[in-house]
Order: sequence, then structure tokens, then C-alpha cells
Amino acid sequence: MKIDEILQKMNQDELGSLIILKPENIAYVTGFKPSSISVLILKEDPLLLSSKLDLEEARQKSQIPVGEFKSLDELKKTLKKTIPGNGTNPGKIGVEHSMTVGTYHKLCEDFQIKITDIIESLRVVKSPKEIRKIKGAIRIAEDSFKDLDFSVSEDNLAAQLEYNMRSAGSPRPSFETIVASGPRSSLPHATTTSRRLESPIMIDWGALYQDYASDMTRTIIEKEEEEKIFSIILEAQQKAIDAIKPGVNASHIDKVARNVIEEYGYGDNFIHSTGHGVGLEVHEKPSLSYRSDEKLEKGMVVTVEPGIYIEGKFGMRIEDMVLVTNHRKVLTSKARKIFA
Amino acid sequence: MKIDEILQKMNQDELGSLIILKPENIAYVTGFKPSSISVLILKEDPLLLSSKLDLEEARQKSQIPVGEFKSLDELKKTLKKTIPGNGTNPGKIGVEHSMTVGTYHKLCEDFQIKITDIIESLRVVKSPKEIRKIKGAIRIAEDSFKDLDFSVSEDNLAAQLEYNMRSAGSPRPSFETIVASGPRSSLPHATTTSRRLESPIMIDWGALYQDYASDMTRTIIEKEEEEKIFSIILEAQQKAIDAIKPGVNASHIDKVARNVIEEYGYGDNFIHSTGHGVGLEVHEKPSLSYRSDEKLEKGMVVTVEPGIYIEGKFGMRIEDMVLVTNHRKVLTSKARKIFA
Repeated sequence: MKIDEILQKMNQDELGSLIILKPENIAYVTGFKPSSISVLILKEDPLLLSSKLDLEEARQKSQIPVGEFKSLDELKKTLKKTIPGNGTNPGKIGVEHSMTVGTYHKLCEDFQIKITDIIESLRVVKSPKEIRKIKGAIRIAEDSFKDLDFSVSEDNLAAQLEYNMRSAGSPRPSFETIVASGPRSSLPHATTTSRRLESPIMIDWGALYQDYASDMTRTIIEKEEEEKIFSIILEAQQKAIDAIKPGVNASHIDKVARNVIEEYGYGDNFIHSTGHGVGLEVHEKPSLSYRSDEKLEKGMVVTVEPGIYIEGKFGMRIEDMVLVTNHRKVLTSKARKIFA
Repeated sequence: MKIDEILQKMNQDELGSLIILKPENIAYVTGFKPSSISVLILKEDPLLLSSKLDLEEARQKSQIPVGEFKSLDELKKTLKKTIPGNGTNPGKIGVEHSMTVGTYHKLCEDFQIKITDIIESLRVVKSPKEIRKIKGAIRIAEDSFKDLDFSVSEDNLAAQLEYNMRSAGSPRPSFETIVASGPRSSLPHATTTSRRLESPIMIDWGALYQDYASDMTRTIIEKEEEEKIFSIILEAQQKAIDAIKPGVNASHIDKVARNVIEEYGYGDNFIHSTGHGVGLEVHEKPSLSYRSDEKLEKGMVVTVEPGIYIEGKFGMRIEDMVLVTNHRKVLTSKARKIFA
């Protein structure tokens, strides 16, 4: 079914074949996420070429026939045999935007190429099965947040959280866990340090479940001046969530959140976009940014994560995951004030 | 100093500027590893453009002046102003092999481009300071391997190991920890499962310390037929390590290890190369593979990791890290037989 939809899109773009290297895109089409170099060749009779390292597992899991990937040079020879080059026929090959120029020049110079994100565009809207996997990743992340010991360092709090997620089957955090405490919380992407936790404590973390990601942020506060800022981001987040529905511009959601924060005079302290899609990658389309030209569609899963960062003082952010439907559905247990 | 060496290499290649996007390459030159998009423009007066998310931290850590990265379009305008395009001057821009074709087409179409890995080629030989950081990453990984409880699942053993590394300051494992037990050990890159540990237990893990990686593998065995195989890979590893010295072909080291395993009749079961460089990335040059055309040089740090994998039965691998010097030095506590 999925492969039919892809072939149809390829047909529209007049592509004889599509070469897929990005592991998440291979996972989307085949059900197998490679750990090492793999090349998925999509055409009438699709083929996944996997490195020897992955071959046994690929054969067990892939819904598409599997062969061995040997080298780029060998692949190029195969492509030349099966795909007509410029000299003989204007058959076009599609490649992903994420292909590196190194590989591009090695592999594609002799062919007519179109850079296309057919697979990524299909990934934006999630199927019920995908949504179940995302919920699985949320469940692992939320269960892992229970019973943590906060009388420790940033490093150790992250260690506890990740231990819980790992024990529950998440092969790694969906991104590098952020635990930023006290003045370090003004760094939205702070790496953890050995400093002892102090208010506010911003924790941004996520799990993986069957290759799908979750992503959420909680900030724990104990001071009055922090509570004031917290109320602002809570209001911004609620209004942004309420604005989510199919057909709305993604940039509008950013505007709604940003307007609230600007009204309170903290516009310059909200230094990132309001959210992003989550799926096989923790950051994917759509972008809830003022620059986005995307429209929300039923079945998208997005984060809503306003934040305020005051350099030299502190910062905070809250982040929940929302399923776009006619009555938008918050998939995470909605952020609320948490006092230490 | 580092920047002078880079400018000299750029001069040899007649490059007016070099655009660096890969976080590890940016870390190598500036001392700051970005968490979000950053662009390092290397020229007489180099400049690091960082996303707002990283700006505060970049300014604290970068040894090169920092500005704000706004968008690719804006960057392109800046480049057009400061770097003469094809129309006016044959000034060439260097870009990395790892740049994506998407970015390449957006950013570079109007310039004369050379794809070059100047930074990566400098990274191959490690300075004493870099070797100290690699040793730090080894220390964290080895200390974390002590006092583990093996009466648990693959998932939980990985969780314990990663908890220890995280608590010791490694922001993440240097790659996804492999714990493959019983018949699953025949998968060289197995993801962990909830199955209870049984012999053999293959554990491949590494830590990060100040952005530098470690990478090692231990296999714990308890059966006689496993011991036979273990002795073979131990012999192969020792002979390969003994062959390491400056000036030797990297492919020769692979050959030495492979010959031992072939002599015992397991050549087809050694399904990967013998090793790889380790530094800011856990897999980097040189490759100790039969295909490699690289020569070992003093100051390289490589893994030596022969393995035998018998599909449907079991597999095992041992892996140590070696510094190339006139008297090669094993940096890890050399693998030996470990019985459960």
C-alpha cells in the first residue's frame, strides 16, 4: 500500500527510481531501521541493500526484498545496468535533500537527478499505527519521570531519567536529555553539568518506541518571580494549543504563542519557534515557526513549546505533544505548575 | 595555530573561504560544539554563525568570533557580498563532503565550489590534548563497566552502564550501546531486547568526554565451544595490535587479523572490517579495512575489533583502542577472557 502511494508520486514526478539513504525514511518504507549504510532503491521491484552488519536483521524485519550492500562503486555499476543514464534515455532518478554532496558526486553524476522529499512529505501525516507508536514513546518518557531524586546534580538527574527509559526498552533518548538548572536554564539547549540542582529546573527529554520519538519539557520552580514567568508561558501554550486545527497555517500557531509572550514584554526572550513535528525523527515537518509556509493537517503530531530565557538570570520552557484533529488532542499529560 | 594550518591548506587549494557545517568539525576548530544549525566561515577573518538557541554558549566557548545565524537565504546574501561569485572573480569556496545536496543547492549554486575535507584530514592525527580527552572518555567507559548486575535483561544491563556513564558526565553514549546475548550475539549491531542475559554476552559501548569518544567491546562467555572461538579472536586481535606502527598500510592490519581467523576456518564469519579511527566522532578515519588506502601515522587512535558471527548460534567480538606510536600503545585495559 505504502509502496503504491510512493510509486504513484514518483510517476507524477517522472522518476524511474528513487534512492533512499536516510535511515528514518528506510524505516518508514521497509519497517527496518538500518544501523549502518543501507540503500533503498524504489522502483517497480524495490530492493533494500544492507551492509553485512545488518543483513541478518534486515532479512527478518524488512517488508521489501533485501540484498547485500557492498560499495558505492558496485551500486553505481548496478544502477547503470538497471537505470538508463542520460546518454540513452532521459530516465530520472530521485534522491533525498539529505544525501551528502560526497555521495551525490560519487553516485549520481552520470544520471539525470531530481532532489525530492517524497518520503518525508508522506511521513508528515501519521497513520493510526504510527500514532500508537508515538503514544508508546510518550508513555515510556512519562513513566520514567516518576519517583526521581532531585537532591542530585544535573548529570545525575538525566542519568536517572535515561536509566528508566532504557530499562523500559527505549534504545536511546530520542535526543540528548536537557537538564538545566538555576542560571543555566537560560540556555535553551544546555548540556548537563555536575552542578547541584536548584530552581528553576528545566527538563527536556524524550524516548523511542519502535523507532518513534516523544519530546516533552517540564520546568520545576520554587520562587515567586519564576512563577510569574511560568504563568506567561502556560498561557501562551494553552492559547497556541487551542488554535490548533486542520487547515490552519503552522505559522499562525507560532504567532498566537508569541503574541501572548510579547504582550507581557518578553518577546525578545522567546528565542526559538513554537514547535515542530515529531515522528520517526524528533524534529521533522511541520515547523511551527513564523517562517513556515505549511498548513496543519489531520494526523500531524506537533510539539507546542513556548519559552522565556533571561540571560544571566534563568529561563524556562514547557512542551507538550498535540495530535492535529478536528478537536485537537494533547497526547502528553499537559504541563502544569510544578513546585519543588 | 590551528587556524593558520587550515588557512595554509586552503591556500594550497586556492580556496578563498571554507564553509563548515558539521558539528564535529566546528568543535575541532572553535572549541564549541553546536547543538543546532551553525555555520563556520573560515577565511582570513573567520566567523562562527550560531543559531539563537546556542548563541549564549557559543560566545562563552568559541575561540573564533561569533555572530547570529538567521537563515540560509540571509547567509547566502552575506556570502555574495563578501565572496566574489563566478561572474566577477574565480574565488573558490570549499565545502565538506557531508554537506547535504539540499543545502548545497540552496547555498552554493552561484559560487565556484570545491568539495574538500581539509578539517577531517587534520583531525586524523591527534594532538596530546586530544589524546588526553580520548583517555578521559575511556576512563568513564571502563569505570562504568564495574559492579554491573548481570542477572537482568539486555535492556537493563545497557541501562546500568549508561546510568554510570551519564552520572560521570558523559552527555550520551558515544553510540547506541550494544548488549547482545545468547543467539542474538550473532547480530554485530543488535539492538537490546528485554530477554534475560545468557552466554555469550557481547557488550559494545563508549562514552564522551569533552566531545571526544571512546569505543570498546567485551564478550563474557561460559561455555567451552564459546571459549574456542574466543581464543581465535583474541589471537587475531593480538597479532593485529602487534602489527600497528607508523607507516604501515591500514589495510595490512585488517589482513593480519583476517588471516588468523581464516586459518581457523571462520573467514566468512568475520563480516566487518578490523577497526576505525576514533576522536570527535566514534567512527572516523582511518579505516582498518581491506579496501583502505590509508597509511597509519603517529598520533592516530584506532580500534582493533575482530569478531566471529555464526548465524543462528552465537557471535562475539572484542575491541580495544590503540594509539599509533613507534611502540603502539593499547589505551584501553586490553580484552581478556571473562567468564560469567
